[in-house]
Amino acid sequence: MDTSERPRAAVVVTGSELLTGAISDRNGPFLAKALGELGFEVAHLLVVGDRPDDLAAALTFVADAGVALIVTSGGLGPTADDLTAEVVASFAGVDLELDEAMREHIAGILAGWAARTGFDGPALEDANRKQAMVPRGAVALTPVGTAPGLVVPRAGGPLVVVLPGPPRELQGVWPSALESAPVRKLLATVPAAQSRELRFFGFPESEIAATLREIGATRDLSGVEVTTCLRRSELEVDIRPLPGAEDVAEQLHAELAARHAKHLVSAEGTTTDELLARALLERGLTVATGESCTGGMLASRLVDLAGSSAYVAGGVVAYSNEAKTALLGVPAEMIAEHGAVSPEVARALADGARERFGADIGVGITGVAGPGGGTEAKPVGYVCFCVTTSDGLVLARDPRLPGSRADIRERSTDTAMHLLLRAAGGLPRR
Amino acid sequence: MDTSERPRAAVVVTGSELLTGAISDRNGPFLAKALGELGFEVAHLLVVGDRPDDLAAALTFVADAGVALIVTSGGLGPTADDLTAEVVASFAGVDLELDEAMREHIAGILAGWAARTGFDGPALEDANRKQAMVPRGAVALTPVGTAPGLVVPRAGGPLVVVLPGPPRELQGVWPSALESAPVRKLLATVPAAQSRELRFFGFPESEIAATLREIGATRDLSGVEVTTCLRRSELEVDIRPLPGAEDVAEQLHAELAARHAKHLVSAEGTTTDELLARALLERGLTVATGESCTGGMLASRLVDLAGSSAYVAGGVVAYSNEAKTALLGVPAEMIAEHGAVSPEVARALADGARERFGADIGVGITGVAGPGGGTEAKPVGYVCFCVTTSDGLVLARDPRLPGSRADIRERSTDTAMHLLLRAAGGLPRR
Repeated sequence: MDTSERPRAAVVVTGSELLTGAISDRNGPFLAKALGELGFEVAHLLVVGDRPDDLAAALTFVADAGVALIVTSGGLGPTADDLTAEVVASFAGVDLELDEAMREHIAGILAGWAARTGFDGPALEDANRKQAMVPRGAVALTPVGTAPGLVVPRAGGPLVVVLPGPPRELQGVWPSALESAPVRKLLATVPAAQSRELRFFGFPESEIAATLREIGATRDLSGVEVTTCLRRSELEVDIRPLPGAEDVAEQLHAELAARHAKHLVSAEGTTTDELLARALLERGLTVATGESCTGGMLASRLVDLAGSSAYVAGGVVAYSNEAKTALLGVPAEMIAEHGAVSPEVARALADGARERFGADIGVGITGVAGPGGGTEAKPVGYVCFCVTTSDGLVLARDPRLPGSRADIRERSTDTAMHLLLRAAGGLPRR
Repeated sequence: MDTSERPRAAVVVTGSELLTGAISDRNGPFLAKALGELGFEVAHLLVVGDRPDDLAAALTFVADAGVALIVTSGGLGPTADDLTAEVVASFAGVDLELDEAMREHIAGILAGWAARTGFDGPALEDANRKQAMVPRGAVALTPVGTAPGLVVPRAGGPLVVVLPGPPRELQGVWPSALESAPVRKLLATVPAAQSRELRFFGFPESEIAATLREIGATRDLSGVEVTTCLRRSELEVDIRPLPGAEDVAEQLHAELAARHAKHLVSAEGTTTDELLARALLERGLTVATGESCTGGMLASRLVDLAGSSAYVAGGVVAYSNEAKTALLGVPAEMIAEHGAVSPEVARALADGARERFGADIGVGITGVAGPGGGTEAKPVGYVCFCVTTSDGLVLARDPRLPGSRADIRERSTDTAMHLLLRAAGGLPRR
């Protein structure tokens, strides 16, 4: 097989706060995805603290790993621990210079901000000057916030793209980084990526591994990289060919989809959320929710996509028994007889939500999210789901879900989305 | 000042799926936080793909950075790309051996799983054997899932703790890793951490920077590391002393709290969510929500904490105008006159939720989350909040929030939580 390696790239995220575990890094995943879609193989993603020596060591490490491109995020802010521009300049062997046009541009942004917030004074002036310092020979990118991005060439490579840390600013500056001359020149050498995805529900990773071994025993799969991951209770399988192995990837993709059709949700990269939105819009259907243990998480997930007002009628979070009865018409005697966590109450929540909101599809969820409240008959993780439709379909499940309180609530939301997709006709209605 | 460096640690997370951007790494932040609390300085957090050479290079890089401890996650699974045990054994210069007791232990777990799911056969046997291979001289930790953790000493250091990738398994095995003899021996040499936190709302990072410069001009702050990060619309300030600088950190903490008292939410590490739960429980108050643009996100956030059934009465997601009127009694003529996004409707949503659920505090949110639907008078990001209480308090806000649809909904939820904290008496009621 005629395959060659893809050029490699690395992401270096700075921020001591990311090493205290206080917040999760959002820039690394964003950049890794973007670089993969451009055709790079992402070799490393590093998070380093706001210490110049550690950042310098990280840049040298990924350069030694043979990457053609490094993208950094963070450390362009106004505080003394924001040192990325300086360290990258030193890495590239050049000095920092004040970019007067950029200083004026940032001054204008800061003036507007000071007028709005009432914060002003010498702190702002220092910040302004600091953020307008640019490595000689670098391309400064117009800021979305107050920190400009930088594209810094280094003799002998790699090219370094320096982006601000706030995710909104980073994502705002990214397109202009791609349009800069040095990045365009590099991208012209990168072969296009043709990743293919499969998504399965209720299906273990070990089965995909076994199928791959079986297929791999009869023909050469070495030109494709297959990665699997569990996300939102679905097994995502990503098939990425090296240049020259596109046919192998296509055939493997078709074979996995056919062999495991029963568990297949999607074979072209669409998520359950997108499929559900599409199915509801195409059929002109609306949804209403009656949630107990998930506490609004399902409604919130349905509203995530723009345009969801066309198909989300609304929902009730009926956490107490009184609310279940008063707002969704669940009979108090039903709760007394079967318990608040029961298939009967799940169905009454679904019917109640559907009727109160005048929707086509209703979904009810009631379960024991824990950590307390479990019994032998209804342990922590026992969750009852019911989806009912105005044309008489009833889909019910009552699994015991593993994990913590947060896990159980998330998995409950995943399961409900999957049942809704069946009810909306986006998957077989069973 | 008599301060010395803390011992350093590094986290190496494996998984090609984390480099495609498909999912965010949860293990890195968990481990970084845990290591920081144990008194280590976390030097680096690396994410590498499932390629043995890249993992080996990462281990060598952090060893060269002078860390005393490396914790890895992932790559212990059943598939061929799960190679961490092998690479770490080679890094430590020892061979892998089959641990027969561990093989039997895992076989027992897999048998139960196979009986429950119906998946069985040679794929499972291979997985079993592979997952019971242990580097010579290592401590094997009893698995929570099917993959055992490992504690692998290396001549000349660092010590390597190898943990499974699924966050639930990793967090389940972590305590036994800490209790293993090699880790206990290392921990005995690590000085205790005494990190101090401050949390501010509606306060820019540059002001903290200016205050730190001002204080730093009059006395030596070099023994403390101050990190700031914006999380859930709050500025978190973390003050961490090197050994010997505990008094400097304590004084600085008190000074920042006093200088910026107006914006202070908490000075002892508690979050708004915890403070709100505490205030509601102490006063025996209940909350009900009436949400439009946030679509259940606020209710879901209120339900996040265990025990929330004591103070969450419930909520309505009233996404359509009809639902606002039918379920929460918002007068149709009010919507017609002022628009669905208006301070008047926010108040009616709050009052309606409070009355329907018989709660002490009601909160209403209505806004333009975008990307469509904005007008000149009510642009994308314009959100109206109102919190009303049964004792007559009314807190109203109508800011224009920046960012994407997801940002606006999250910031709206943050703002509502902050207003609820004021209404519940956890902060001044204004």
